[in-house]
Amino acid sequence: MKLTFLGTSSGAPSRYRNVSALALQLPQQAGAWLFDCGEGTQHQIMRSALRVSQFDRIFISHMHGDHVFGLPGLLASRSLQAGMSTPLTLFGPPGLQEYIRRTMELTQTRPGYPMEVITVAPGLVWEDDRTQVFCTPVAHRIPAFAYAVVERDHAGHFNVEAAAALGIAPGPIYGRLKKGETVTLEDGRIIDGRTLTGPIRRGRRVVYAGDTTFTRNTVEIARGADVLIHEATYLEEDRALADRASHSTSLMAADAAKQAGVRTLILTHFSTRYEGEGGSRLAELLAEAQSIFPNTMLARDLWSYDVPVFGDEGVRG
Amino acid sequence: MKLTFLGTSSGAPSRYRNVSALALQLPQQAGAWLFDCGEGTQHQIMRSALRVSQFDRIFISHMHGDHVFGLPGLLASRSLQAGMSTPLTLFGPPGLQEYIRRTMELTQTRPGYPMEVITVAPGLVWEDDRTQVFCTPVAHRIPAFAYAVVERDHAGHFNVEAAAALGIAPGPIYGRLKKGETVTLEDGRIIDGRTLTGPIRRGRRVVYAGDTTFTRNTVEIARGADVLIHEATYLEEDRALADRASHSTSLMAADAAKQAGVRTLILTHFSTRYEGEGGSRLAELLAEAQSIFPNTMLARDLWSYDVPVFGDEGVRG
Repeated sequence: MKLTFLGTSSGAPSRYRNVSALALQLPQQAGAWLFDCGEGTQHQIMRSALRVSQFDRIFISHMHGDHVFGLPGLLASRSLQAGMSTPLTLFGPPGLQEYIRRTMELTQTRPGYPMEVITVAPGLVWEDDRTQVFCTPVAHRIPAFAYAVVERDHAGHFNVEAAAALGIAPGPIYGRLKKGETVTLEDGRIIDGRTLTGPIRRGRRVVYAGDTTFTRNTVEIARGADVLIHEATYLEEDRALADRASHSTSLMAADAAKQAGVRTLILTHFSTRYEGEGGSRLAELLAEAQSIFPNTMLARDLWSYDVPVFGDEGVRG
Repeated sequence: MKLTFLGTSSGAPSRYRNVSALALQLPQQAGAWLFDCGEGTQHQIMRSALRVSQFDRIFISHMHGDHVFGLPGLLASRSLQAGMSTPLTLFGPPGLQEYIRRTMELTQTRPGYPMEVITVAPGLVWEDDRTQVFCTPVAHRIPAFAYAVVERDHAGHFNVEAAAALGIAPGPIYGRLKKGETVTLEDGRIIDGRTLTGPIRRGRRVVYAGDTTFTRNTVEIARGADVLIHEATYLEEDRALADRASHSTSLMAADAAKQAGVRTLILTHFSTRYEGEGGSRLAELLAEAQSIFPNTMLARDLWSYDVPVFGDEGVRG
């Protein structure tokens, strides 16, 4: 699972950061998913190693402009790619469907690919045999959702050499043993599949909390997550601004990460006020979060982060 | 009158050019006008010497996405500027008003300044004591307009020294003489104001033809213009594509400039197909236009062009 931050500014673009968008690539899949799509997201994709044509699922956290104004242009440009016919599915809060429909109608934009807009409700949003997506309401000024992308647990590694050493010939029986079943061989021996497979490999869990103040729902959906991506619009000294706009300070984000027991917290959606002509104050914002949740990082535009597999960190350095 | 090209690509942004937008600054005015507003226009403004807060009038040629998808974000960001309360007026075809209203509603964007959307009809669109704006329908797949910005003619320079030498004391009488009136002095002398003022200075005329194929209406509105900004999406060899999409080839644009007798033609809105990995073919596109209208230039992103005052070119070099 690879994250690429395409926009990390709140409200408006700055000289350093674009408005919200986050790409996710799943292992062994050519497609890519997008979480939120502020204006200029297609431009950011052009500057990254990704391609607009790759995206086949888009998840919208909420309907504020800095999270959706890039959608119509992205949908139109995707249609201009030669031979583009891959279906696109959008998931989001009430209003998304009408926003897309009206905008496309009024600008006579007709995507040359099948497109579906799904209004999400708390719970399971989408799944296939490898991945599930859940959402939960968070606390913002308008309906807003956090999304969890959860890899299903993988069967452990099947020890082919050990099976061969036991004189078990390859065939459908390998599949049963791999699943951990107990199998009786033709010669009467009873083999417990679990003795031939390594431990189950836990799937990863990545949670993207769109705009929100601190809320129990975020803690619940992020419980035990590998990565929590949480907005941190403000420094704690601007707590009043955060409260007024239902945004988070970095301390609030860190508190959510700590209570959820996540492994890594990535902060994003920074107010433009902290990167003015006087230099950046984001180091302070990071330090504030790290004071209660040390494993915190700051997102920056076009930064990619490979989510480590549990237990692999040593290997990957 | 100063033009700044903010986007010169057709359809979709490329690595080299953003989608359509053009800024116009009038002499001795702090505000700025915008013609069309493709996605990422506010980002382009950030890269220029202009500011989002400066724009107080926006003219939209037609409702295709590559000309309007940057509007909602620009309107929202303008609202985030500290203390921004300058009114904004938008002019455009039917559909613009609903596009703005729906988008703002669905994303709960509430500009902190007065905003008005005016649906234009052929003829005079707007005027004050110095400038007039006219529009005319052009020929595209959906309703589309060309805009002409016309400076009113200025009174000639009033020769203060000559008036003083005649013994005329400064006062309201100067104003009357400046207007070319004939005035009777207290001592009985009759003075013809026209003898004290230089020739009338002709105002400039700048025409922006949004997406269009060749049309008589463009020729009419651009007649005698100082600058015609005309789309040239295609090379003549791709005439079939131009015809199919109601766009222009560079020859069609040059033909309009020639028939209208404009002084300068600036081409824009180039298909991304001509700036691929094999290098740019825009020199061919320019040469094609220059073969029938020599004084042609190619627009590029962030290029500014000062429209010369008639007769001043020698002075300005």
